[in-house]
Amino acid sequence: MPSDMEALRGKVEQINHQLLDLLSRRAELVGQIQTIKTREGIPTFLPEREHRMLVELVAGNPGPFSDDTIRKLFKEIFRASVELMESQSRRTLKISRAHRAADLLVRVGGQVIGADPVLIAGPCSVESEQQMEAVARFLAAQGVRFLRGGAFKPRSSPYSFQGLGERGLLILEEVARRRGLLTVTEVMDTRTVELVSQHADVLQIGSRNMYNYDLLREVGRCRRPVLLKRGLSATVDELLWSAEYIVSEGNENVIFCERGIRTYERQTRNTLDISAVPILRQKSFLPVIVDVSHAAGRKDILAPLGRAALAAGANGLMVEVHPCPHLARSDSEQQLDLEEMARFMAEVGMSASPSLAQSVRAMG
Amino acid sequence: MPSDMEALRGKVEQINHQLLDLLSRRAELVGQIQTIKTREGIPTFLPEREHRMLVELVAGNPGPFSDDTIRKLFKEIFRASVELMESQSRRTLKISRAHRAADLLVRVGGQVIGADPVLIAGPCSVESEQQMEAVARFLAAQGVRFLRGGAFKPRSSPYSFQGLGERGLLILEEVARRRGLLTVTEVMDTRTVELVSQHADVLQIGSRNMYNYDLLREVGRCRRPVLLKRGLSATVDELLWSAEYIVSEGNENVIFCERGIRTYERQTRNTLDISAVPILRQKSFLPVIVDVSHAAGRKDILAPLGRAALAAGANGLMVEVHPCPHLARSDSEQQLDLEEMARFMAEVGMSASPSLAQSVRAMG
Amino acid sequence: MPSDMEALRGKVEQINHQLLDLLSRRAELVGQIQTIKTREGIPTFLPEREHRMLVELVAGNPGPFSDDTIRKLFKEIFRASVELMESQSRRTLKISRAHRAADLLVRVGGQVIGADPVLIAGPCSVESEQQMEAVARFLAAQGVRFLRGGAFKPRSSPYSFQGLGERGLLILEEVARRRGLLTVTEVMDTRTVELVSQHADVLQIGSRNMYNYDLLREVGRCRRPVLLKRGLSATVDELLWSAEYIVSEGNENVIFCERGIRTYERQTRNTLDISAVPILRQKSFLPVIVDVSHAAGRKDILAPLGRAALAAGANGLMVEVHPCPHLARSDSEQQLDLEEMARFMAEVGMSASPSLAQSVRAMG
Amino acid sequence: MPSDMEALRGKVEQINHQLLDLLSRRAELVGQIQTIKTREGIPTFLPEREHRMLVELVAGNPGPFSDDTIRKLFKEIFRASVELMESQSRRTLKISRAHRAADLLVRVGGQVIGADPVLIAGPCSVESEQQMEAVARFLAAQGVRFLRGGAFKPRSSPYSFQGLGERGLLILEEVARRRGLLTVTEVMDTRTVELVSQHADVLQIGSRNMYNYDLLREVGRCRRPVLLKRGLSATVDELLWSAEYIVSEGNENVIFCERGIRTYERQTRNTLDISAVPILRQKSFLPVIVDVSHAAGRKDILAPLGRAALAAGANGLMVEVHPCPHLARSDSEQQLDLEEMARFMAEVGMSASPSLAQSVRAMG
Repeated sequence: MPSDMEALRGKVEQINHQLLDLLSRRAELVGQIQTIKTREGIPTFLPEREHRMLVELVAGNPGPFSDDTIRKLFKEIFRASVELMESQSRRTLKISRAHRAADLLVRVGGQVIGADPVLIAGPCSVESEQQMEAVARFLAAQGVRFLRGGAFKPRSSPYSFQGLGERGLLILEEVARRRGLLTVTEVMDTRTVELVSQHADVLQIGSRNMYNYDLLREVGRCRRPVLLKRGLSATVDELLWSAEYIVSEGNENVIFCERGIRTYERQTRNTLDISAVPILRQKSFLPVIVDVSHAAGRKDILAPLGRAALAAGANGLMVEVHPCPHLARSDSEQQLDLEEMARFMAEVGMSASPSLAQSVRAMG
Repeated sequence: MPSDMEALRGKVEQINHQLLDLLSRRAELVGQIQTIKTREGIPTFLPEREHRMLVELVAGNPGPFSDDTIRKLFKEIFRASVELMESQSRRTLKISRAHRAADLLVRVGGQVIGADPVLIAGPCSVESEQQMEAVARFLAAQGVRFLRGGAFKPRSSPYSFQGLGERGLLILEEVARRRGLLTVTEVMDTRTVELVSQHADVLQIGSRNMYNYDLLREVGRCRRPVLLKRGLSATVDELLWSAEYIVSEGNENVIFCERGIRTYERQTRNTLDISAVPILRQKSFLPVIVDVSHAAGRKDILAPLGRAALAAGANGLMVEVHPCPHLARSDSEQQLDLEEMARFMAEVGMSASPSLAQSVRAMG
Repeated sequence: MPSDMEALRGKVEQINHQLLDLLSRRAELVGQIQTIKTREGIPTFLPEREHRMLVELVAGNPGPFSDDTIRKLFKEIFRASVELMESQSRRTLKISRAHRAADLLVRVGGQVIGADPVLIAGPCSVESEQQMEAVARFLAAQGVRFLRGGAFKPRSSPYSFQGLGERGLLILEEVARRRGLLTVTEVMDTRTVELVSQHADVLQIGSRNMYNYDLLREVGRCRRPVLLKRGLSATVDELLWSAEYIVSEGNENVIFCERGIRTYERQTRNTLDISAVPILRQKSFLPVIVDVSHAAGRKDILAPLGRAALAAGANGLMVEVHPCPHLARSDSEQQLDLEEMARFMAEVGMSASPSLAQSVRAMG
Repeated sequence: MPSDMEALRGKVEQINHQLLDLLSRRAELVGQIQTIKTREGIPTFLPEREHRMLVELVAGNPGPFSDDTIRKLFKEIFRASVELMESQSRRTLKISRAHRAADLLVRVGGQVIGADPVLIAGPCSVESEQQMEAVARFLAAQGVRFLRGGAFKPRSSPYSFQGLGERGLLILEEVARRRGLLTVTEVMDTRTVELVSQHADVLQIGSRNMYNYDLLREVGRCRRPVLLKRGLSATVDELLWSAEYIVSEGNENVIFCERGIRTYERQTRNTLDISAVPILRQKSFLPVIVDVSHAAGRKDILAPLGRAALAAGANGLMVEVHPCPHLARSDSEQQLDLEEMARFMAEVGMSASPSLAQSVRAMG
């Protein structure tokens, strides 16, 4: 290296340390300002003040950086300061893994979600007592503990079957009680949160309602665990924020549900975003479930997807099962029949009877 | 062409006509069955019966078509029959252009949406009376008739500014009344539909609530026109069905709002789906507005997007304007200031003062 | 504002100006270093050195900023410096509007692309002399100057019609010469660039080859203007870089072609990214054409899309037209027949005969 | 059920069987026509003839089906016939699982891809002999058999490092030979296929060239196995067709590589489409590898993604590893260093030393 270059580099390094010193002193001052702001109830972020400071700095810019570059660099410095102030105000996400290294164990009726993988299974819609009884008897015998079934169904068309409503809730509750199962069912309207929480063990927020913030707040005020499905094309960040809506109202028991996102690919109904599983678990202490049925929208790849989800760290799987899928009033192509369900459980290694699992694997 | 081939082709054509004859006779019978079904209250679509017919047909398949092909062909025939029956039951979309060749004119306070292009403008959020007064005075002077402003704001974070709520509604109403403007504001919760409809002229359903079916039904029961924004990654079909939810409850005055869809491209906040404009107008008689601000998420391309939207057949534009965008409590980068708004109006050819428009064009 | 807060703010502002001063001095030094680097042939960006500086700075971080924040802030400062050095080395895009305020006029055979809107029309594939003659005669009569037609066709299946190859080129050339038209045709392989450029006036790089950098370089070395189509899901930035590949080899005459991007929406074959038109024209001085046929993949919305493209600032339209679309060997659903083409031209206001345009508009 | 309805249903069922009979006879005739067509070299699909038949049928449509419905039903019937003819002509994909129930084992230098999971590892680019030697020594010691490294690099910018070219090939070959490894490297241009195949064991077709059909054909003519990466936003079907291009030229040894697709989500560089793994393996007998590095674009979730890929049925993993990632000339954020690589191998259960794997798992 030429010696003139070496000398210049030495000067650059010296400036680096002066910058570091100034940045740190600036951050100290900003921290003191924040203490006053908190005391006086002044907002942390004051865009007008930032704007004025930028105008001044640009006015005094001697070059060689362009004004745009100066603006950009100082915006970064301001942003770092605001973030520091916000973290001081404990404004970071309550659901952040930063606040709690250990996984949250969501306890419901003697069962735990967040430790050993669980299965949540059942039909898309509650259609009749006979249908639910057939599923519940089968699932209980297989050792599954969570029965899902929709009483209020969000359907694209107002003329499609919209679920049995309250009658569906009662069937679900009665059948589950009889078979010793816990129930998971969707709630769609702020006005029915209380009703649904009287009859169900876990409230589901469907993909179409992940951005329905009033509904999120309302389930945040009730005592039931909430299974929160990712929106059709929600980002992981938006999903985290939606969970925060619930938790910020006092209900910590939220379970994420990855169920595929909308992309251009047509082989599957949605594209299972398998990366979301480790990312959610890294960012938050809340459990993560994967709904393989809605992700795939077809039955023939559910087992590999289920195995992949568990291998990626999911705390459980959700799967649709119906005694007679071809007669189902919704989602008929993606629901497993009882025999297929037994096989699925064996193939993902969650069969109650390990010998069955082994024999299926040996065949597979 | 070889003569043996010609002979075979003749036979194929003969069979074509026999097939046509049988298909038509089958459709006649199905129509008669539907009359009975309507009389007796039996559902049109009986999957179990279809299933049984398919099993029988496949059992009798002599080849050379595979069983899968036979299943597929008959499913098409069955589907065509169900569609015929459903159209007989007037189950097609109420909002379909098929029912009404002429565009619907949505009338609100002496103004019309659906004929000459309209402008809907105003800030993202109602923040204060001074802010709204500044915008309203300016818009009224420019000849704009519709003032938008959010009192209830759907925000990703529960800790962001959520709007002024009822106080915001009152400010919006009072300022608009004073300046002779009509108001457009969002409603997010079934429980506040009545409140909002007492204070606003047009109710907005935001993108995040396009799938909130209970909310759609509720605004379908009130007397206010509804501006329905397309969901973040909703299909055109889903948007049509969401409008149908509103109309099916009795409120015909729905206005579509295309506002960009979520894609991989990062130059714009969303990708404006310009094709949706002619497609919506072809499929339905309802008016279509384009929200250029949310589509672009930046200010420098609003004018070309606005011109493109109008050229594609949009019935109007929605644009965010704020007296001091850098102080805005939400969406500060995408709101125009008053001077930019005047320029935008001139550039899209919607200026009240044609001379201004001409001078801006001459400069542009 | 409390007086203690005011005092603290004063100190913050003082530090801001000290930071500005240091950043500017640092940039001066970096500029001097770059002069040496250029002289000695040392690369501008030396990740190892940056890495070492970061390690040192983090080691000396006194807080309260986290080490991550310090790393992020200094990375921004380093990046700004590298950018400054690179701009010094004139490494910014040659195609940038920054280098040339005026639009580039691409001149080909007495015609100009980049000023008044042009039409490029013709069938998807060159199939026969009769077919091409029918189209060419019609287009010439309508005043269209550019005839497109594929001789080398990129098809998803190796068993589909792959174009007539060199014979197709000869037909295209001969027919165009006879009718006084200029030709646009695709080149797919580095080995055939010379051949194609001997027979065609404008070389097309198709969507599937936008990332084929060796091909881009090869057409950059020939003397023909290049029509560069955006990749199926390319970003605007990637499209700009691909043009830069061509221009960096010496061929400045590049024409962008927006043709829709791949999204989840199925109403159209691709989603026309109308925002790309003003953004490309803002970022570069090169002309922008919109291929409405490939964007839509259907014929019934071509006119509104064409009008929108022109309103957004496009320098021309590309459209597929075939004398008998239902007999076309590729893309049969999206090609206009001759009558539809005449109507399209009238509806987008590009008809040679203004009276026809007027009468169609009056009907429309 | 009312008796009149029962009678009508009986008639419908009778017609069903008559339709089945006619459809089958029609298919027989079409098969005979196809035999003649094959003999005479007449194309299977004649759109003009179909068009004429449709016109005739619609002309004779007695109702109640609409003309559109009749057109749609007969198009389905015609399509089924064409498919039957094509299957008769063995025009289905050569790579289809239908032709070969057993997985293809791609044999290269004593190793097998398609049976037990393999690891393909190495840096993004070949930068120097020292760098490659450090990686190769490490990988060989860990029991990895495949060394990747790019000599020809497809880069978005023409000014970025483009790889060492032929010199890179020689380094890669020499280092691999010394350490007993097999090499995987990208080929980008038809003109360099021969050169690259002289020096590498497996040719890689990168994502940007998946649609470069001339290149696919060219590697189809050489004797090296080909690793075919899925395009940035290619569908599974397009990936299958691209493989068919290679195989149709005589080179059966193609290995699919899923590497994530482009979506709106920004947590990862691409969205790993885990469902593509079981779907590709179901549709084709070719092996499937998953490139976790390009899918994630970050290092912290590679292990869960690797485990998920193997659980979903992948035949191996590809991962980027570099002795000093922060000094890498490309993709520096996503390459593992040697220690991270050892840990990754243990965490996905592919460590050569099982005790290490166990200890890492115990820690995990």
